Amino acid sequence: MASEEIGELAKRRGFFFGSNGAYGGTAGFYTFGPQGAALKKNVEDAWRDRFTIREGNREIEAPTIMPEAVFEASGHLEGFDDMLVECPECGESHRADHLVEAVTEIEDAEALPGSEVEELIADNDIACPSCGTPLAGVTVEDFNLMFATDIGPGDGQPGYLRPETAQGIFVEFPRLKEYARGNLPFGITQIGPAYRNEISPRGGLLRLREFTQAELEQFIDPEEDEPPLDRVRDVSVRLYPATEQQAEDGEYVETTIGEAVDEEIIGSPWVGYYLGVAKEWYDRIGVDLDRFRFRQHLAGERAHYASDCWDAESEVDGDWIEIAGFSYRADYDLSKHDEYGDDAFTVFKRYDEPKTVERATVDPDMSVLGPEFGGDAAAVAEALETLAERDPDAFDSETVSVEVNGDDQTVDTDVANFSVETVTENGEHLTPHVVEPSFGVGRTVQTLLAHAYSEDEVDGEERTYLSLEPEVAPQDAAVFPLVTNDDRLTELADRVAADLREAGVAVAYDDSGSIGRRYRRQDEIGTPFCVTIDRDGIEGDGPETVTVRERDSAVQVRVPAEELATELTALRTGGEFDALVDRYETVATDVETN
Amino acid sequence: MASEEIGELAKRRGFFFGSNGAYGGTAGFYTFGPQGAALKKNVEDAWRDRFTIREGNREIEAPTIMPEAVFEASGHLEGFDDMLVECPECGESHRADHLVEAVTEIEDAEALPGSEVEELIADNDIACPSCGTPLAGVTVEDFNLMFATDIGPGDGQPGYLRPETAQGIFVEFPRLKEYARGNLPFGITQIGPAYRNEISPRGGLLRLREFTQAELEQFIDPEEDEPPLDRVRDVSVRLYPATEQQAEDGEYVETTIGEAVDEEIIGSPWVGYYLGVAKEWYDRIGVDLDRFRFRQHLAGERAHYASDCWDAESEVDGDWIEIAGFSYRADYDLSKHDEYGDDAFTVFKRYDEPKTVERATVDPDMSVLGPEFGGDAAAVAEALETLAERDPDAFDSETVSVEVNGDDQTVDTDVANFSVETVTENGEHLTPHVVEPSFGVGRTVQTLLAHAYSEDEVDGEERTYLSLEPEVAPQDAAVFPLVTNDDRLTELADRVAADLREAGVAVAYDDSGSIGRRYRRQDEIGTPFCVTIDRDGIEGDGPETVTVRERDSAVQVRVPAEELATELTALRTGGEFDALVDRYETVATDVETN
Repeated sequence: MASEEIGELAKRRGFFFGSNGAYGGTAGFYTFGPQGAALKKNVEDAWRDRFTIREGNREIEAPTIMPEAVFEASGHLEGFDDMLVECPECGESHRADHLVEAVTEIEDAEALPGSEVEELIADNDIACPSCGTPLAGVTVEDFNLMFATDIGPGDGQPGYLRPETAQGIFVEFPRLKEYARGNLPFGITQIGPAYRNEISPRGGLLRLREFTQAELEQFIDPEEDEPPLDRVRDVSVRLYPATEQQAEDGEYVETTIGEAVDEEIIGSPWVGYYLGVAKEWYDRIGVDLDRFRFRQHLAGERAHYASDCWDAESEVDGDWIEIAGFSYRADYDLSKHDEYGDDAFTVFKRYDEPKTVERATVDPDMSVLGPEFGGDAAAVAEALETLAERDPDAFDSETVSVEVNGDDQTVDTDVANFSVETVTENGEHLTPHVVEPSFGVGRTVQTLLAHAYSEDEVDGEERTYLSLEPEVAPQDAAVFPLVTNDDRLTELADRVAADLREAGVAVAYDDSGSIGRRYRRQDEIGTPFCVTIDRDGIEGDGPETVTVRERDSAVQVRVPAEELATELTALRTGGEFDALVDRYETVATDVETN
Repeated sequence: MASEEIGELAKRRGFFFGSNGAYGGTAGFYTFGPQGAALKKNVEDAWRDRFTIREGNREIEAPTIMPEAVFEASGHLEGFDDMLVECPECGESHRADHLVEAVTEIEDAEALPGSEVEELIADNDIACPSCGTPLAGVTVEDFNLMFATDIGPGDGQPGYLRPETAQGIFVEFPRLKEYARGNLPFGITQIGPAYRNEISPRGGLLRLREFTQAELEQFIDPEEDEPPLDRVRDVSVRLYPATEQQAEDGEYVETTIGEAVDEEIIGSPWVGYYLGVAKEWYDRIGVDLDRFRFRQHLAGERAHYASDCWDAESEVDGDWIEIAGFSYRADYDLSKHDEYGDDAFTVFKRYDEPKTVERATVDPDMSVLGPEFGGDAAAVAEALETLAERDPDAFDSETVSVEVNGDDQTVDTDVANFSVETVTENGEHLTPHVVEPSFGVGRTVQTLLAHAYSEDEVDGEERTYLSLEPEVAPQDAAVFPLVTNDDRLTELADRVAADLREAGVAVAYDDSGSIGRRYRRQDEIGTPFCVTIDRDGIEGDGPETVTVRERDSAVQVRVPAEELATELTALRTGGEFDALVDRYETVATDVETN
């Protein structure tokens, strides 16, 4: 199916639509309508169940506005830029790298220096896509993608909307490690909004200025902690390693997580573990695995500190889109905050037994260094200390030389008071490594809609339906009184709907239009079960009954009204409709007869 | 208990703490740690269950950044200000109204004009609380509380972080009404972040710059729609009406929702309905109803358009804090967007039968008006049209006069081509009224902690525990292997924890320290049930058993391991622990013996 069809259905049926339409719309912002918000929330709950609760991880919720210091440390202030070229004629802004990629063979123009992109624009006669003005000679600028704001009044401090939820976790590591009582490994998750002030937002949910991430930061001791790989060893995966992407006839590698890790196709067992968990999760929520793969980052795509990166990609409308990233980030994030922040971003790793180590130290006689080196005396003392740690043998001679502010300074060894102490160490301060599975929630929603979109024919009529998994479908069930002019039917329908809601079942109630039309409406939003209250169900001596229709098969069974909440709850949590077909009477479809 | 104790426990046990501590902290921002995020999410889920699913309402999710035009319409750009006074000496910013309230009898200085507040500062010799410099003569400024940012690069458009989630609903009304197929009443909810750039944030979760709201916008036809008041008629409530607040010996009115509406203590039945629903909901999630009341807004507190407003207030540390507001907003919000926006913020209300009405119109002869009035001709024509609607009799004379740009213009009546048409109208465009229950999620969390905080003595030891309702407690259960040096115990403990997680139970696993200490840790975060795996449970021929301890009573029962998931799920969804005490063997406490 084409994206326009998803977009049209998404808008018409209340999944999502561009925000602020009454004010001309705001590019890069989408509002999730009733169906979309419910679908999205269900995806988030399923993610939380799998990546937080079942993994024994813990979730936190940090603010979306963070102060500048955090992004100085993380590198976003300096490096979170896109290449901007602004048309001198019409004033429209464009991604310079995208313009170059569109007319050349270059696939990753973002990696080139700005000057080279300027040359490519000139050499290829690239013009403004909006007004046709040639862009040769126009400066390509770095545009920082963070939304900036001011915190507090007057000379408030600069703040930014977080470009990823992860920083809200990293920055609180000193406290989070306390909650884990200093023990690695532990995992912290967060689901929430992130922001990127995109130069050119794309349509749909693919490149938004505000979007939702679900991120897991797994903190590990790189020397000791191993993932529970056995749990996912046999999970089959379709991998697209970097080597295959670069080969002439590159192919997918169809393998299992266990084999891929053993054969080092996947470099990090931790990354391998989470690829396995993710694959099973995507299957559970309804991603079509024939339109799904894990693609390894090419060397040029990876951040310098990341040793192994894989993206989960889904096929939507002929394109492969990134829906999650899995990255071994080593100690990059915590080291940076350790360097910039005031607290320690390390854990104390206790040795099995204390170690006795020799440690060279100096205790320089400042009453000598002071007069001799004046303002440099403290720097000389510090340099002596560093030298003692690095090269104790240097103190074997009568004098010792250190470099201070570019000058060699020589000191009598006696003055340094060099000594070697024997100390007992109980452990060391270790900077944990980070493994980061990072999911785009909106892109997952977009994938589920595209993969669930189906067309068939029921009772001689063409229909469109979304074959969403019951776990994520916006509505668990719909309730229809067959007619509205019979109080017995509408009363029972009201009661049925209220009972279901009481049981936590999300119910749509619809009493307008033909029953066939009501089925179609629910089919289009993917409601897995429609409950119709008809006359057959209230006549006779037996218990009141209702019909329950399964969305994809359009098969109906007649179920006692008082069993309904129990049956639907079971169906919603993984039960099979076939079990109802076995136990209850099936009913001929009533689409045509009503 | 004192707020400091909550704050200390909240920080130590991972409920919440000031954000970015490693960078000196950022006033007005709090991070929810693992326990707090879980508690908060459970409160949100409980709210969603009650105010969205059970009410048959629908939830949406709108962006947090919105364009300026929205806030021009809503009035926030113009009027969402606090009174700021900046110390000329130390540069610190203060709320001018709060400074005045602190030293005078004035309770609502915000309602005074800035000039008057300046006079009060001078007359009362108010000095800067930070450095003591007198503030007499310093200008009191209006400081807009919205966080501002720029959307898009270059000459991006101004945007703001929404000061309330409600605007994300109002602005999409034209689309939301389509999803409701144009039928009133319908309710739309949203849970998400909102932002206020407070001049002086307070400690804890009480006045933050970023916070979470759960809002319901109930759209109604004011002439026809009535709430299902019978559902809450008998709910008892403690009301503090405006009259009682102003009376010398004002007292609470202890009554029921039904009586309060009948006697018009509560002005709007819709507001009354939601007060009843809210009261029951607060009870369900664990608010202490002895420390809870509904307080009516005084006339001066209300927005001009709001006819009846009540706050839900809880007592925390001796202060009454607002935790929710219930407001009858009439057609204010939709009328404003209808005026400023391009779409219609109305619904078409079909008459039971078409009405025939007479409508006066004009069709001015522009070939006459053009030469006569030049550039004003179109304005004259428009003025004639308005006049025809307003005062058709004006066209009885030979000439008719209209005012255009301050000048009276006279036109021959013939030229206006006045006529009265008979038209059939099938309905009218109605601007729905809005009833808004608006909840502060963080303040609810703060209340639950304060009201759940308990101290008692168990087995001769003092303990602190949180008697949180199982529905909202951060962890559903904790699992403890009694010792870690017995593989049979740790294996069973692992299996029990995994089974519980598989069943969706949020489980803490703790194997460090004495069992008594582990109980205390869970008591302090309010975990309702602790499961201990001990040797008695695995010895003998019977099925493996574990002990389950209820938090508040500290009573333990021995339960077969394989029944555990079922039993805990039942307890979590409202089941009583007493039922387990009846069915299973109770166990003497093992706190002291281990």
